[in-house]
Amino acid sequence: MKLSEIAKELGREFDGEDKEITGMNTLADASEHELTFISNPKYVKQIPTTKAGAILVNEAAASYAPKGCTPLVVEDPYWCVAIVSKLFAPPIEDEAGEVSVGEGSIVDKKATLAKGAKIGKNCRIMAGAYVGSQSEIGDNTILYPNVVVYRDCKIGANCIIHANTTIGGDGFGFATNKMGEHKKIYQNGNVIIEDDVEIGNSVTVDRAVFGSTRIKKGVHIDNLVQIGHNCEVGEFSVMVSQSGLAGSTKLGRNVVMGGQAAAAGHLEIAPFNTFAARSGITKSIKEQGKTWAGFPLYEHKVWLRLQGKIAKLLKQ
Amino acid sequence: MKLSEIAKELGREFDGEDKEITGMNTLADASEHELTFISNPKYVKQIPTTKAGAILVNEAAASYAPKGCTPLVVEDPYWCVAIVSKLFAPPIEDEAGEVSVGEGSIVDKKATLAKGAKIGKNCRIMAGAYVGSQSEIGDNTILYPNVVVYRDCKIGANCIIHANTTIGGDGFGFATNKMGEHKKIYQNGNVIIEDDVEIGNSVTVDRAVFGSTRIKKGVHIDNLVQIGHNCEVGEFSVMVSQSGLAGSTKLGRNVVMGGQAAAAGHLEIAPFNTFAARSGITKSIKEQGKTWAGFPLYEHKVWLRLQGKIAKLLKQ
Amino acid sequence: MKLSEIAKELGREFDGEDKEITGMNTLADASEHELTFISNPKYVKQIPTTKAGAILVNEAAASYAPKGCTPLVVEDPYWCVAIVSKLFAPPIEDEAGEVSVGEGSIVDKKATLAKGAKIGKNCRIMAGAYVGSQSEIGDNTILYPNVVVYRDCKIGANCIIHANTTIGGDGFGFATNKMGEHKKIYQNGNVIIEDDVEIGNSVTVDRAVFGSTRIKKGVHIDNLVQIGHNCEVGEFSVMVSQSGLAGSTKLGRNVVMGGQAAAAGHLEIAPFNTFAARSGITKSIKEQGKTWAGFPLYEHKVWLRLQGKIAKLLKQ
Repeated sequence: MKLSEIAKELGREFDGEDKEITGMNTLADASEHELTFISNPKYVKQIPTTKAGAILVNEAAASYAPKGCTPLVVEDPYWCVAIVSKLFAPPIEDEAGEVSVGEGSIVDKKATLAKGAKIGKNCRIMAGAYVGSQSEIGDNTILYPNVVVYRDCKIGANCIIHANTTIGGDGFGFATNKMGEHKKIYQNGNVIIEDDVEIGNSVTVDRAVFGSTRIKKGVHIDNLVQIGHNCEVGEFSVMVSQSGLAGSTKLGRNVVMGGQAAAAGHLEIAPFNTFAARSGITKSIKEQGKTWAGFPLYEHKVWLRLQGKIAKLLKQ
Repeated sequence: MKLSEIAKELGREFDGEDKEITGMNTLADASEHELTFISNPKYVKQIPTTKAGAILVNEAAASYAPKGCTPLVVEDPYWCVAIVSKLFAPPIEDEAGEVSVGEGSIVDKKATLAKGAKIGKNCRIMAGAYVGSQSEIGDNTILYPNVVVYRDCKIGANCIIHANTTIGGDGFGFATNKMGEHKKIYQNGNVIIEDDVEIGNSVTVDRAVFGSTRIKKGVHIDNLVQIGHNCEVGEFSVMVSQSGLAGSTKLGRNVVMGGQAAAAGHLEIAPFNTFAARSGITKSIKEQGKTWAGFPLYEHKVWLRLQGKIAKLLKQ
Repeated sequence: MKLSEIAKELGREFDGEDKEITGMNTLADASEHELTFISNPKYVKQIPTTKAGAILVNEAAASYAPKGCTPLVVEDPYWCVAIVSKLFAPPIEDEAGEVSVGEGSIVDKKATLAKGAKIGKNCRIMAGAYVGSQSEIGDNTILYPNVVVYRDCKIGANCIIHANTTIGGDGFGFATNKMGEHKKIYQNGNVIIEDDVEIGNSVTVDRAVFGSTRIKKGVHIDNLVQIGHNCEVGEFSVMVSQSGLAGSTKLGRNVVMGGQAAAAGHLEIAPFNTFAARSGITKSIKEQGKTWAGFPLYEHKVWLRLQGKIAKLLKQ
């Protein structure tokens, strides 16, 4: 899509150098054929280093755009992200079409493979499972009944995805205007699940807004777990039932999230950290190999001591 | 159904004036053709103002029934509600029957439209989705794979309901006798979802026991959220993943429930309040536009200060 | 399978008396044709009393094995449990085969009954529901759309299982080696649900690793509840939305778990205890009939008093 067409959709005149734009991305990740945006002032200093071909920006920050990055000056860049995201959203393609099923795989007649779905060898795609358009399932992987994989996702080899789980549903993203009205930000990224991953029942792994949500090799996820868009779960990490990660949080390898534990968004958790049940994580953790508990979060042994102190209040 | 027949089902003799009863409802909402009940003594003072045609009531409170409201005197009115609720429960009707599908809508062959279902224009009803008897789906609405909409519900236009979500499942209601045994209260109400609502994966929105559970225009709901029977979620409100509302709680417009936040039942939350992740709300909030946190709940800034005070206990 | 074959799979030479082994089980429950294991040193003292035909054991504890119980000495017994569990895992059998459907039952054409499934009388198995191989559904029971019952489970009479719920998914079990890598422990037990049980939407009840996870008569379970492998939920107990039980925890009769309340694993909760919303239970409770709250857990009235004390910290 031409940049001039995008400008037109936003109700703006466009008189700069026109160029082809293939999608949207963040300041850090956008390439010369992508449109980026700046909505949070704290990222203004990153504008000059972006490689994006164009940027949605308000008037105040427009002059920071580097050479080669055409500024589209708008009043509310984030609201415009929502508008533009829809332009790049692919249509729902679940009608019949060419699919690929590897040798030895059994696809139940009541399962659905949408156009372009690709199933590896020796897979089991059980009744009511749905594999969206262009999604790929690796060898020896099992999708139990009623698993839903949205379009464009990749699931590795030797994975087990249990019943009623959804991979690649839309991340929770929208812009809000001054009237308090919301506009959906279409989630045009995907989910990549590496090999040897097991995921329980009724888990929700959201697709990325741009790029990929990623579950790395050997991860084990229990039932009813939430993984937000653009998260990364490191190799051999473990998430116990009813735990959750808000968007863009990254767990290192062998992190353990106890039952009902949760992390806020945009955090980085170093490898080998363990979080007791119902931990509430609101800051990144750089040290490796510790055990944590509580909300606010403390080292587990400190939390235990603190609970002892709190209990003593009863005697006062 | 005649009032005399209901009395008979309850094992009571009936010698009053007989009348046609079409259903059950609360003291406040029941009309002259409905049966109401009183089980919690604190509502006794509302009895004289009810417009119900009859009331399930124990002996002590029977005399409060106003003219036109026939008292059915029983030992345990709430247990009798459970018995009577079943009499009014419609049969499950998911066999084939006449359905209506608007122009431009695509209903997957693996989706099910039960008898009397009505799909608007340009909808997408994907594989494995189920639309119950008499339920209506507005124009341009998408039901992703394996969404289940129980009977008699209404979903507005331009809604997106993501995979594996259930709309209109039975609310959690039962009566318990002195032996600790439970009897289901059939949930004969419905769910109404207004226009422009987006609901994530594996969300559960329960149908009302009487009347409607209502999600208003422009609401955004993330994955794994619970909304109990008879709740109301105000315009443009936002519920983040794993949050929940117990029965009959009403959120005003633009309320934000953070991740894993929850509200007890029968509360009213004024517009524009924001609840941080894992807030626990146990009282109604009349002020608008504040930010809250914690369980017990405090204003967010007070909660932060309190956590500082608690941390200091470690030094004592 | 012969014990010598199991030894071979574990890469061990075998020169003892060979015997037929039909499965695995715990030290306490294993019979003479079963293999048991010891991985946690605190159970060493139970070894001499096991009735198992053989035991996976490290060198240090091998001498505790009683007569008739052949020790298979291995370096990491729990890792070997994972290897052996796979040997006993039955194949997925969801292809067409003989099924049994009782008089008066309606099985939707879009539902799936796997080979050997057995449906009682007057049941309703709705669209997209899946009943696994050899699973049995009692009379008058309703499976709402997209309910998944894995193989070998039993659901009683007069049960209602709501949409998108999964019964009998694999429990969350794996062994971890020194490199932090995990190996799945196949869950070869089942789930037994007794009569008159109602289970909400998107609930997950995991199958046992050995033996059965059990939901007893008259239990009511709300939406989005997690029940781990080998749990037992006592008669007429109630679990409110988003609550959860970790593995092997047993609730007595008429226990109430409030919304988002959770219990750690391997606990026993005496009858008639009530846990307020978001209680966190980490110890067994022997007293009956009390009300609890908080995490750490206190008696409810103490918790309320404690919150009052904590609030006073703001004035210091």
